[in-house]
Amino acid sequence: MGLFSKDIKTMDDLFVHTLQDIYYAEKRIVGALPDMISKSTSPQLRAAFESHLAETRNHVRRLEQVFQMIGTQPASATCPAIDGIIEEANDVAGDVADKNVLDAALIAAAQAVEHYEMTRYGSLIAWAKTLGRNDCAQVLQETLAEEKAADDKLTSIAESGVNRRAA
Amino acid sequence: MGLFSKDIKTMDDLFVHTLQDIYYAEKRIVGALPDMISKSTSPQLRAAFESHLAETRNHVRRLEQVFQMIGTQPASATCPAIDGIIEEANDVAGDVADKNVLDAALIAAAQAVEHYEMTRYGSLIAWAKTLGRNDCAQVLQETLAEEKAADDKLTSIAESGVNRRAA
Repeated sequence: MGLFSKDIKTMDDLFVHTLQDIYYAEKRIVGALPDMISKSTSPQLRAAFESHLAETRNHVRRLEQVFQMIGTQPASATCPAIDGIIEEANDVAGDVADKNVLDAALIAAAQAVEHYEMTRYGSLIAWAKTLGRNDCAQVLQETLAEEKAADDKLTSIAESGVNRRAA
Repeated sequence: MGLFSKDIKTMDDLFVHTLQDIYYAEKRIVGALPDMISKSTSPQLRAAFESHLAETRNHVRRLEQVFQMIGTQPASATCPAIDGIIEEANDVAGDVADKNVLDAALIAAAQAVEHYEMTRYGSLIAWAKTLGRNDCAQVLQETLAEEKAADDKLTSIAESGVNRRAA
């Protein structure tokens, strides 16, 4: 069980709560990606999702490393934001019959996920530095770089043909 | 009432559905910002939220302009993603007693909102271009530029002192 938001009193608490939030989110993404892989039809998109699934499993492990670095047990705090983003992804992707339109919708859904992660890691890194924990910031920075790269890759897959074929 | 996701068959449908999604989101943000303004204590942060509220009202009008350009009545599609992001913002910000920690939490919450909008406008602009609607892309691009600028401003407010005071 995570830190409840009503228990947030200090920046340390805010840092731990947000770490628990993104830990929950990363685990939900590990659960959601296989479905997105099975729905995608562009081989390039499927490969990108598969490689990002392996990365995401590693993001979970990196978060566990950060929990350990600050002497806290890994725990999840329910994250309504990622729940909503994934619900919307399932909803939109669930009923699109045209394969190319579906790929375009899957890319947009995955980019919404990436952007959510980018903003949370951005805040966590800024807070870690302010709290004098450059060591934690460095580990989180590795994940942020991978999230940004995944987002850029999805943009280039969209631009390279998925959107055109769908239109 | 918006286009249901089960009605998405073409790229045009996906474009309209996502337009309805961000129209709902922008209107929810217009509703959420006054509460964030009243909670924020840094005068710089409060001013940034106030200026972004005015911008956001204009984003709603720009979306109505795009609906008009494509010959469709403005309509909202419920967006569980923004609902989740705002629920989380209220939840985290609701119980933080320390004013500086609260400001840091408000900045992070607002940046999650900005990132959600950035990803949706990014997809809409790419799709508008593919659909040969550069005129729509141009209007949406104006809003995207303002969302990015708002996000950058929040980062600089955080770095300029809010995080340090909170720690």
